[in-house]
Amino acid sequence: MQRYFILFSYKGTTYHGWQRQPNGVSVQQVLEEALSTVLRVPIAVVGAGRTDAGVHARLMVAHFDTEPLVEPMRLVGKLNSLLPYDIAVKKILPVTPEAHARFDAMARRYEYWVTQEKNPFLRDQAAYVRGTLDFEKMNQAARRLMEYTDFTSFSKLHTDVKTNNCKITTAYWEKRGDCWVFVIEADRFLRNMVRAIVGTLLEVGRHKMDVEGFVAVIEKKNRCAAGTSAPAEGLFLVDVRYPLDIYLNT
Amino acid sequence: MQRYFILFSYKGTTYHGWQRQPNGVSVQQVLEEALSTVLRVPIAVVGAGRTDAGVHARLMVAHFDTEPLVEPMRLVGKLNSLLPYDIAVKKILPVTPEAHARFDAMARRYEYWVTQEKNPFLRDQAAYVRGTLDFEKMNQAARRLMEYTDFTSFSKLHTDVKTNNCKITTAYWEKRGDCWVFVIEADRFLRNMVRAIVGTLLEVGRHKMDVEGFVAVIEKKNRCAAGTSAPAEGLFLVDVRYPLDIYLNT
Repeated sequence: MQRYFILFSYKGTTYHGWQRQPNGVSVQQVLEEALSTVLRVPIAVVGAGRTDAGVHARLMVAHFDTEPLVEPMRLVGKLNSLLPYDIAVKKILPVTPEAHARFDAMARRYEYWVTQEKNPFLRDQAAYVRGTLDFEKMNQAARRLMEYTDFTSFSKLHTDVKTNNCKITTAYWEKRGDCWVFVIEADRFLRNMVRAIVGTLLEVGRHKMDVEGFVAVIEKKNRCAAGTSAPAEGLFLVDVRYPLDIYLNT
Repeated sequence: MQRYFILFSYKGTTYHGWQRQPNGVSVQQVLEEALSTVLRVPIAVVGAGRTDAGVHARLMVAHFDTEPLVEPMRLVGKLNSLLPYDIAVKKILPVTPEAHARFDAMARRYEYWVTQEKNPFLRDQAAYVRGTLDFEKMNQAARRLMEYTDFTSFSKLHTDVKTNNCKITTAYWEKRGDCWVFVIEADRFLRNMVRAIVGTLLEVGRHKMDVEGFVAVIEKKNRCAAGTSAPAEGLFLVDVRYPLDIYLNT
């Protein structure tokens, strides 16, 4: 058997998130079905992480095991023909047998896209936020995130993770075309964390909270202190990084 | 009465083009209905030009007459609430009484977007063209367009226009992100012209035609010499320019 990493992107609008669900179609299910059809054996994949319903991925990574493939790139074409328009496979790479899409991921990067004008071309691919936003203040607050590690305030209650510690290495807003984009990178993220951070930063942007108020929210370590979660459609997983030694040269 | 220019964008995927049709919903019809509802009188608009079914506009201009508006920008918000997600009004500007959205347009600019990889986020917003394309050769051919004025070879047969002469001032391919974009500007365009040009340039890109062959197509002045039209979903009207003296300062 050989282990492979599969790199792909998806538009999450019509899916009940990444992870298999008893009631609702997930990206994982559709991808596993396509792999199983093309490889003619049941294939299970392990993803780098979860994305919630409606959240997108410009780059998502998962691993699976199968008999060694003669031409992994031919598999990419077959999968893309079989998969619906909203899931696109980019690459399939052989990795070491113990490489793990979730446990070996060193860093994950998300983007949150905000449009301030009605835009027919960004349907379900950006949050439409009306009213003036003070992006300078939002950036001042975002920078403060990197001074902390416990993000209980931005986590979902009652999840089963052992620690709420994350090391955030990047956090800023920048203008891209007609949109504002929040870029955040960390070694790990708690469930709902990016959307809770963005929702709270939007309150800073509306001057309903000042930068010190934002810092106080972090320090409270209490989910009820943060703002409402920003909607799913603006959120994109855009990168997952691994140590280079897990990739095999073939 | 006061004449206004209305500036708007639309995703053309679900429309039977810009112009009112007996059987099929057009952008013009939906826009006129929204204006008539908000202004409470029947409003007819005259567009800067036509776009075919499935073609988009990042910027389209039309004119209409109505009683002077106290706050044109408030009308923008009302129209956007009423219009579906795929039509967005950007501005409403008072113009001189004889200003005409079609006859006064000095230049129109189109973009044609090509993606060479399956992309979940460009559904209906770029043509997915497989296989290697020689963009250097396509650019060499595109530049030759500016040496000619009669584009009969790239026009629809049996249209009622008096002349097939157009002055093309811009024509090039450039890479934008993961896409290749063909940018073309001219004083006027014939029906189907951009898609016929792009379809023929793609043949140059595939080495099925060389640059001199492309020039020969132009010189033949015969529609049957050109390649197949490129699909509608890649085409965007992106700009229409007018002489500044038609805009009123208010």
